Amino acid sequence: MVTIRDVARLAGVSVATVSRVLNNPAIASKEAREQVLQAVATLGYRPNANAQALATQSSDTIGVVVMDVSDPFFGALVKAVDTVAQQHQKYVLIGNSYHIAEKERHAIEVLIRQRCNALIVHSKALGDDELSRFMDQVSGMVLINRVIPGYEHRCVWLDNVSGAEMATRLLLSQGHQRIGYIGSSHGIEDDLQRYQGYSQAMTQAMTQSHQSGDAPPAAWRAQSSPDLQGGEAAMVELLGRNLHLSAVFAYNDSMAAGAMAVLKENGINIPDDFSLIGFDDIPIARYTSPKMTTVRYPIVSMATLATELALKGAAEQLSTGVSHCFMPTLVRRHSVSPWQNVAPVTY
Amino acid sequence: MVTIRDVARLAGVSVATVSRVLNNPAIASKEAREQVLQAVATLGYRPNANAQALATQSSDTIGVVVMDVSDPFFGALVKAVDTVAQQHQKYVLIGNSYHIAEKERHAIEVLIRQRCNALIVHSKALGDDELSRFMDQVSGMVLINRVIPGYEHRCVWLDNVSGAEMATRLLLSQGHQRIGYIGSSHGIEDDLQRYQGYSQAMTQAMTQSHQSGDAPPAAWRAQSSPDLQGGEAAMVELLGRNLHLSAVFAYNDSMAAGAMAVLKENGINIPDDFSLIGFDDIPIARYTSPKMTTVRYPIVSMATLATELALKGAAEQLSTGVSHCFMPTLVRRHSVSPWQNVAPVTY
Repeated sequence: MVTIRDVARLAGVSVATVSRVLNNPAIASKEAREQVLQAVATLGYRPNANAQALATQSSDTIGVVVMDVSDPFFGALVKAVDTVAQQHQKYVLIGNSYHIAEKERHAIEVLIRQRCNALIVHSKALGDDELSRFMDQVSGMVLINRVIPGYEHRCVWLDNVSGAEMATRLLLSQGHQRIGYIGSSHGIEDDLQRYQGYSQAMTQAMTQSHQSGDAPPAAWRAQSSPDLQGGEAAMVELLGRNLHLSAVFAYNDSMAAGAMAVLKENGINIPDDFSLIGFDDIPIARYTSPKMTTVRYPIVSMATLATELALKGAAEQLSTGVSHCFMPTLVRRHSVSPWQNVAPVTY
Repeated sequence: MVTIRDVARLAGVSVATVSRVLNNPAIASKEAREQVLQAVATLGYRPNANAQALATQSSDTIGVVVMDVSDPFFGALVKAVDTVAQQHQKYVLIGNSYHIAEKERHAIEVLIRQRCNALIVHSKALGDDELSRFMDQVSGMVLINRVIPGYEHRCVWLDNVSGAEMATRLLLSQGHQRIGYIGSSHGIEDDLQRYQGYSQAMTQAMTQSHQSGDAPPAAWRAQSSPDLQGGEAAMVELLGRNLHLSAVFAYNDSMAAGAMAVLKENGINIPDDFSLIGFDDIPIARYTSPKMTTVRYPIVSMATLATELALKGAAEQLSTGVSHCFMPTLVRRHSVSPWQNVAPVTY
């Protein structure tokens, strides 16, 4: 590796002069500039980003912490950050944290130590206290998909409860009563909030129809990993319990697509025999057969805003007193149809 | 931001002493160590990764350049790199390059400047000359999905031609003759190689059946972006040309799944009316209906090996004289069936 010392030696100047020419050419003499730049070209020397970052206490890197970049939802999040980063001639450093507290903490610390001046963090395992301490240290750190009281202007989040209520009410409005919920086993607040929205809508419907005002039975909920395989496993579990469900609301589209595959394999027609609704509206939802009815999570808009806020925060230009809560919307496709009051359903 | 100077001031020692305690505690006195560590704790000082990297001329970061992390194939690649990285207590810095030469060059240069001592690069737009110059400078740089003569021991790649021949021969063995090819519009060598494999198998079959030994007609090939939407567009294009095809080999599983959606929407049953085969074996291939027959690209094994090679290269421990060419394998699911010699097919 060619170092700044090699350049100085060939140019016949001091290391300090080389540094001055490269980092602050205006204050270097014309002669020194020519000698140094010629030596740089001859040797193929690359200025060290770490040295430059050290000099300016910042780097040209935007940090992102997500659960798992190979999950399509987080892939879309990272891509949106990358798009904004490119517009600002910055690069993106990604850390996967798998919803594990120790990995979330480590990823954030590594990015801070890299002197990333803008950080977009998706953290679910760390507590509010720890995250706010990080945010106090790093003015360009913004949370996505989470809100911490007192830091609303640096958080971009979604109203998960309303989204889940919308999904459940759509199924209820089609005459479905026995509606299951397929959730994530990661135990994160998104799953709790979506279950809460489902449960509230179900309880309200039961009360209105003069039945009990109880929450839906615990047996109507199954949990697994929030991906295709997990959706498959959770749907197998619900079918095995023989609950006579006629519809399912799934935690996300990947789980809904996995559930759809199981239903089809069991000869259960969607939407005629069974209705399904997902969450997120990732591309796969448009390519299942039938196309998936879902709740849209505007992750691209949200990640774009989060990145812009992080860059403003890094430049100490963030306004306080504003909050950034997004609302989900329903996307009606073809996986939901009215409940058919036919002969006893055996699944 | 708390700096090393603040720590030195509070501890009542020099900046050099603080640096010694943090980077090389064995040579610092017990008294200095205690004073410095207490000041570090009091101030919440974080050692600067850039300063540490500068001192050691390396960083704890592994760099990865991929086309687009939100593409499931590259998501799987990055995840495999991350798994190896975590085993070595390293972090992953990802640059998206979108198969554009300028972006590939920039991503590699940024990662080199960050002093990543291990680099896994998926580059399609840069020439062999430029990539080999980079590899000469950085001993821990490894190419994935590409081979450059003379650098075989630092390349991990797949025999694309054989994979495409396998796929095409499977369709031919089922009696299909009019087989289309849906390719990538990115103009990268993978597409050329897969088209070559398809074309070779087709020509050989024509010759054996005493028909012409010509390559398949150009009209049987359609190109678009290598994703779900692109597969949809290319299939619409082929259907519109009214070619009486009975099967299609697609560049990747995403395109095959997009094509499947279009065929279904047009009332064309898979596999009874039409056979489809993909490439890669990403998870989506197991969740289409019917499940997709495909060619398996062992990307997880390949990315794992590439990362191990890159770490060895960074430690100057790479063996020469070996090469790392992987062979694809067929995965038979349910999207291919024998050609039915029925009434004139109108699509």
